[in-house]
Amino acid sequence: MSEIFKGIPRIHYEGPDSNNPLAFKYYNPTEILGDKTMEEHLRFSAAFWHTFNAAGADPFGDGTISRPWDKYVDPMDKAKSRMTGAFEFFEKLGVPFFCFHDRDIAPEGENLSQTNRNFDVIALYVKELMQTSHVKLLWGTANLFSHPRYVHGAATSSNADVFAYAAAQVKKAMEVTKELDGQNYVFWGGREGYETLLNTDMGLELDNLARFFHMAVDYAKKIGFTGQLLIEPKPKEPTKHQYDFDVASVLAFLRKYGLEKDFKVNIEANHATLAGHTFQHELHYARINGSLGSVDANQGDELLGWDTDQFPTNLYTTTLAMYEILKNGGLHKGGLNFDAKVRRASFTAENIFQAHIAGMDAFALGLKAAYKLLKNRALENVIEERYCSYTYGIGQKICEGRIGFSELEEYALANSVKNQSGCQEVLESILNRYIIQAQN
Amino acid sequence: MSEIFKGIPRIHYEGPDSNNPLAFKYYNPTEILGDKTMEEHLRFSAAFWHTFNAAGADPFGDGTISRPWDKYVDPMDKAKSRMTGAFEFFEKLGVPFFCFHDRDIAPEGENLSQTNRNFDVIALYVKELMQTSHVKLLWGTANLFSHPRYVHGAATSSNADVFAYAAAQVKKAMEVTKELDGQNYVFWGGREGYETLLNTDMGLELDNLARFFHMAVDYAKKIGFTGQLLIEPKPKEPTKHQYDFDVASVLAFLRKYGLEKDFKVNIEANHATLAGHTFQHELHYARINGSLGSVDANQGDELLGWDTDQFPTNLYTTTLAMYEILKNGGLHKGGLNFDAKVRRASFTAENIFQAHIAGMDAFALGLKAAYKLLKNRALENVIEERYCSYTYGIGQKICEGRIGFSELEEYALANSVKNQSGCQEVLESILNRYIIQAQN
Amino acid sequence: MSEIFKGIPRIHYEGPDSNNPLAFKYYNPTEILGDKTMEEHLRFSAAFWHTFNAAGADPFGDGTISRPWDKYVDPMDKAKSRMTGAFEFFEKLGVPFFCFHDRDIAPEGENLSQTNRNFDVIALYVKELMQTSHVKLLWGTANLFSHPRYVHGAATSSNADVFAYAAAQVKKAMEVTKELDGQNYVFWGGREGYETLLNTDMGLELDNLARFFHMAVDYAKKIGFTGQLLIEPKPKEPTKHQYDFDVASVLAFLRKYGLEKDFKVNIEANHATLAGHTFQHELHYARINGSLGSVDANQGDELLGWDTDQFPTNLYTTTLAMYEILKNGGLHKGGLNFDAKVRRASFTAENIFQAHIAGMDAFALGLKAAYKLLKNRALENVIEERYCSYTYGIGQKICEGRIGFSELEEYALANSVKNQSGCQEVLESILNRYIIQAQN
Amino acid sequence: MSEIFKGIPRIHYEGPDSNNPLAFKYYNPTEILGDKTMEEHLRFSAAFWHTFNAAGADPFGDGTISRPWDKYVDPMDKAKSRMTGAFEFFEKLGVPFFCFHDRDIAPEGENLSQTNRNFDVIALYVKELMQTSHVKLLWGTANLFSHPRYVHGAATSSNADVFAYAAAQVKKAMEVTKELDGQNYVFWGGREGYETLLNTDMGLELDNLARFFHMAVDYAKKIGFTGQLLIEPKPKEPTKHQYDFDVASVLAFLRKYGLEKDFKVNIEANHATLAGHTFQHELHYARINGSLGSVDANQGDELLGWDTDQFPTNLYTTTLAMYEILKNGGLHKGGLNFDAKVRRASFTAENIFQAHIAGMDAFALGLKAAYKLLKNRALENVIEERYCSYTYGIGQKICEGRIGFSELEEYALANSVKNQSGCQEVLESILNRYIIQAQN
Repeated sequence: MSEIFKGIPRIHYEGPDSNNPLAFKYYNPTEILGDKTMEEHLRFSAAFWHTFNAAGADPFGDGTISRPWDKYVDPMDKAKSRMTGAFEFFEKLGVPFFCFHDRDIAPEGENLSQTNRNFDVIALYVKELMQTSHVKLLWGTANLFSHPRYVHGAATSSNADVFAYAAAQVKKAMEVTKELDGQNYVFWGGREGYETLLNTDMGLELDNLARFFHMAVDYAKKIGFTGQLLIEPKPKEPTKHQYDFDVASVLAFLRKYGLEKDFKVNIEANHATLAGHTFQHELHYARINGSLGSVDANQGDELLGWDTDQFPTNLYTTTLAMYEILKNGGLHKGGLNFDAKVRRASFTAENIFQAHIAGMDAFALGLKAAYKLLKNRALENVIEERYCSYTYGIGQKICEGRIGFSELEEYALANSVKNQSGCQEVLESILNRYIIQAQN
Repeated sequence: MSEIFKGIPRIHYEGPDSNNPLAFKYYNPTEILGDKTMEEHLRFSAAFWHTFNAAGADPFGDGTISRPWDKYVDPMDKAKSRMTGAFEFFEKLGVPFFCFHDRDIAPEGENLSQTNRNFDVIALYVKELMQTSHVKLLWGTANLFSHPRYVHGAATSSNADVFAYAAAQVKKAMEVTKELDGQNYVFWGGREGYETLLNTDMGLELDNLARFFHMAVDYAKKIGFTGQLLIEPKPKEPTKHQYDFDVASVLAFLRKYGLEKDFKVNIEANHATLAGHTFQHELHYARINGSLGSVDANQGDELLGWDTDQFPTNLYTTTLAMYEILKNGGLHKGGLNFDAKVRRASFTAENIFQAHIAGMDAFALGLKAAYKLLKNRALENVIEERYCSYTYGIGQKICEGRIGFSELEEYALANSVKNQSGCQEVLESILNRYIIQAQN
Repeated sequence: MSEIFKGIPRIHYEGPDSNNPLAFKYYNPTEILGDKTMEEHLRFSAAFWHTFNAAGADPFGDGTISRPWDKYVDPMDKAKSRMTGAFEFFEKLGVPFFCFHDRDIAPEGENLSQTNRNFDVIALYVKELMQTSHVKLLWGTANLFSHPRYVHGAATSSNADVFAYAAAQVKKAMEVTKELDGQNYVFWGGREGYETLLNTDMGLELDNLARFFHMAVDYAKKIGFTGQLLIEPKPKEPTKHQYDFDVASVLAFLRKYGLEKDFKVNIEANHATLAGHTFQHELHYARINGSLGSVDANQGDELLGWDTDQFPTNLYTTTLAMYEILKNGGLHKGGLNFDAKVRRASFTAENIFQAHIAGMDAFALGLKAAYKLLKNRALENVIEERYCSYTYGIGQKICEGRIGFSELEEYALANSVKNQSGCQEVLESILNRYIIQAQN
Repeated sequence: MSEIFKGIPRIHYEGPDSNNPLAFKYYNPTEILGDKTMEEHLRFSAAFWHTFNAAGADPFGDGTISRPWDKYVDPMDKAKSRMTGAFEFFEKLGVPFFCFHDRDIAPEGENLSQTNRNFDVIALYVKELMQTSHVKLLWGTANLFSHPRYVHGAATSSNADVFAYAAAQVKKAMEVTKELDGQNYVFWGGREGYETLLNTDMGLELDNLARFFHMAVDYAKKIGFTGQLLIEPKPKEPTKHQYDFDVASVLAFLRKYGLEKDFKVNIEANHATLAGHTFQHELHYARINGSLGSVDANQGDELLGWDTDQFPTNLYTTTLAMYEILKNGGLHKGGLNFDAKVRRASFTAENIFQAHIAGMDAFALGLKAAYKLLKNRALENVIEERYCSYTYGIGQKICEGRIGFSELEEYALANSVKNQSGCQEVLESILNRYIIQAQN
């Protein structure tokens, strides 16, 4: 393999005292916590679009980043060179998974037939590269939002021809995902929402979205795709309102249309905060509903109102995320996908390695802190004690459904209430101590 | 009846050219639009807590408002005088409904027995007053958030004794609501949420909330209460996170626990915007899910992050709200309850009349604009045309479920996509014209 | 002139009852209010970048809009055709002003010399077009944010070579603005801020920004440019923090560096709300500080956290904006520039006319409502009465500076306080009536 | 001294491995960093209002907290007992400073004379207590927002009598602050703003605010008060808009009215985030303007829109705050005042100790991390290198003011631009390592 990222070495674990900016300080893939290695716990994935397609453009400025494959004029040559570079990156970083949208890896042609042929050619090339690589496909997806045809949505477009086109695109993307042994298939409805209610029939749009998902479930069965289907919530941006606003909105939808057994959610940190929730909230809520499928591991800026997709470096966030994931028994088929882009000012090739290292080290520390929190039952014992009144007497009867308002009124008339402190400040101190001591 | 609001006349409709600040300019109760009078369309309600209990305190300052009943020391004397004043207000304003929390109208006693007796005494007094008044009870509810016992929640408290107390309180409030012919019963879970996930078992809390609602449904049946049960969403405040975040969260919950047929939602404008939605969004979404029950008619300030509960005067909001309500065939048992408080600086008795007049006039204009929008099908025709591709050919097959991904792919391969403009700016202009011409 | 916008007629005033979507319903340029025509009051301007360059791309999708000049491959041919189309648009719409960034109208060349030559060629072409058109240049500006060289800022770049380049660009843009009789020159510091404080020397950056502005003032004097210099505040986006956060931040800066006499502000509605202020607040605050220079007339969505740059259609906003502008004695050299873009789904040529008509009609109604509010002193009398205690006695002494804490304490010990109601709800009702009756 | 906080021991440093919830794990007052002890670096202060007056009430619920002094009926008895308890708390916690509003420590009487006498009595009692305590007064202030008289503001009230009353109150509070050797005097203008512009003369209000501050400066000189005068910015809440929105707004105001030499700012973390800034931003901006006076050390919740006043436990915030403070050469007369309240659910006496311990430990860790960051020049070297182009050649000329647009254009025409990466992700990783290693 010709080197595209020349001069960048394979990244190794060197420990906290290393000053090498191209080394892991905390992420040690082979370190064992409980019954798994750190690599098995974390199941990191690189995101094709941000890391190999994006060039640092924003609504007010052009791209700042140039990569070696930009030299090719022919889009298929560029796509192959980009894929070669991607695999070199996967190997050098040692990341076990990657993810892509159909149009990230292969260019759109003059019509759908040609586009599908382009996709097939690159998919075959990926398959070859995978044979000599240990990197696996975490999930595939279809880009149903960038092309102008999706201006009014895809499955929720006001135009039935667009619904049909979107169906064709998902069909193909699912086939390729299966071909490449993808462990999941993701739906992010970037244009499935509305710009203004003045021209929108939300009822029809949501019914159509459900029809689309039912077709997807049927088609997955038909072709024997056994990966997990995932919906990724986001409240807004690009649209004014996106139907998959948050995990609760997704579950309301799935339950209405009888789809709740077929889909789990892919939770993105930055989407959670844009919806007014913490990342932990969305993970916890999905977990207790049996719907936690996979994670887009990034971070936003809560003082900004758009998706900044920063690499995750906040240790509070990574610790509490790993806490929920460990309580979920892990992510199973899911993973921690770095749906994150280097800042526009971080335009060097080294920066993309460093940014991933920053994220992986932050999650490694988070895993270690969370693992100890759970092992020591630092929060578990507090919570168990706090709710103990539901394990006996009147509380037990409530939980067992053996009581109603009349009996509860009798009880309330005869008893007085005494509450215990919630001790939030102490718990925040405990969390700090576990983070500070994570590396030990 | 001795006059408490001395010097304030009965409010009449005087038309747009009146300069009388204590007259309606746009709300003409007997004016007919379609098959109903304006009064029947709007079903206005006064909110006891804001208008008769609140005194203008905020987290940084004491109350600014003094009312005639403040002179009483004995809490029951005060409660009776306040109720007398309330009915005088209802009559003078001509508002057809009112709403209350149990503790708004009767003071808490030394224990639950005494509290219930206080409540009975005042309820009886209300019943007497209702016999000579035409005001009716839109809904009753129980205050499960102000007392320190609810510091960790009510039905979602970590303390089973608090669950029992809350059950007793709802039981009693539902009985009184029935006794006073209340048309609905509302649940607003002001403390049903969490402050920090570090000490919270959300799974148990939500299961308990569902148990509580099932008990409420059972008890309503047992006593023959046929009013509509309503849940009022709010995303946060007072708690960090409130479980009934928005309509979608409520529906996700109801559907999980098999409660979706028993409850509708009571949508508050200010709660919608705190959740990141427009008021119209929440109304529209509830409507297409068959869940639009009633409305808390107020407005927030989108640049502020707390519940300002202002009187609704924004004509865009009132027009689009009435548009959704008319499309819902009206609110049925529900109404437009002014869950709104005069500003802290609007401390006179006249101000509470003027604030209600401001809100009623704004909704009257909104009704007239919305009525004409629908009558002229100003938006309906645009929407029908926009989605017409689902009424024939491939679109019709999609809607009828007679097609899958494979056939859609064939279609997409053979056809090209052509979209129509969404024309948002034109539609906004049309809305402006209908508002400007509402009074005509 | 060959027609680029074929089939679109010259837009005329047809009055409120017209159903022609390509006519003004409320904006009647020759209608007289007080001492000016409506056209003189409003001083509308079209923004080159949104209306002629932008194609509907957003961070998640490609452009949806194609315009006739897209057919040209050579960038200078395209630039000329675009400019021809722009002037056809100005004439057909009847807008009296336009604005541009240097790079909007002429393409960047291979180096600065060539870029400047391109700019000269197009500027000359503009000058020719202006001779047979009545459209005038409201302001010019330099785009110091789109090119990758400005990734770390322009005048606040960490790289002195970039400072130099920015200086050269402003120098040239100011020369062209003068050449075209521009009435103002605008500075919007889209990258003048920071992404992270971890790598930022804010003190040096702000000192450099002041140096840059002093050089600009000097150069304007040197070449005899007598237009008004304007700074346009924006709090964030694209950068995490932009130094010209809001009007107050700009004034703090100008006063520190002795620049307050040389600059006024260009206030954009959407930037105001992103900063947590109402549009009226920024206008009012600038007005009382003698700094209200010009206006970017658009609107944002307060539930979204980015610059949506929508066409202004909210009548509350336009009325209160015109209220402040009338109280300012008009905008003098400034104008109402439509720094607004058609929605991505409004991709037809008609849409750009309709969007401007929507905005112009909304401002026309706002002007009429504001004019009557002031003529009737509907708010003025309330305010005069509210503050009257400062016109005599102790209040007068306070205002005249003839008193200190000791005398005020004596007064306070001897007198008691009695406040009057603020009557916000009544004032909101009055505002509604003026808006509803604006067209009369 | 009779014990009010019975059973709570004096708090000691026990180190990171201690499991005693009533011990410091990281705050070791006598530990030396550089030329100061940790106690001297941090200058912690307890806030009287939150810790001794507040009872856990919020807009939706009553107080949850009862303290021993609640047993007293007579307000002066209660005030004395509360003060006795406060000093016991100061001693047990070992906090070196405290702060108060006039009305926190002594009750309002029937008129201002009596109120002042009450204040004198308690001030004398404080003075006695201080003689046997090592706790000092960081700052005093006057509460000009809680009483209904301030409904329209204090120095910016529409009522001149209220201005006079506020002046009298500040006069007295400043006298008492001087008497108790207060090191600063703070102005927080909780009602100095507006609710609606419809009834507001902002120009007069701001002029009056400036008059008030000039009188305060004069009076401080007159009585020989040499403490630092401080203004505390907050953008909103309780008012819709507060004039002292953020540090920039305060500086714009001070510079306009010639007050910039007389005042510094007291920066509160939660107020910074409510204004859309990070805490570090406000500290950094004040620092480079020579205006960093003191700090209200708390934290908010960026997903909530109101002032939560939580105890500061976020180590990123405390580290970056201490980084700015160390670069400022310390806070001089200022300190770190815990303007923070225990959560409503943290209602025990132990909780107030634990919450302060949590905050002090978090700042101790932040200090240690920041101290090492600076000692190692971990960020300083990066920044120095990043801006080095301003130390020679064209950059040096720019900084020295020896160049203008024409010369810069010549330079730009002759040179090309080459930028360096901003490396944000690497810097965030470095910050993580310093925090993780802070305790070592």
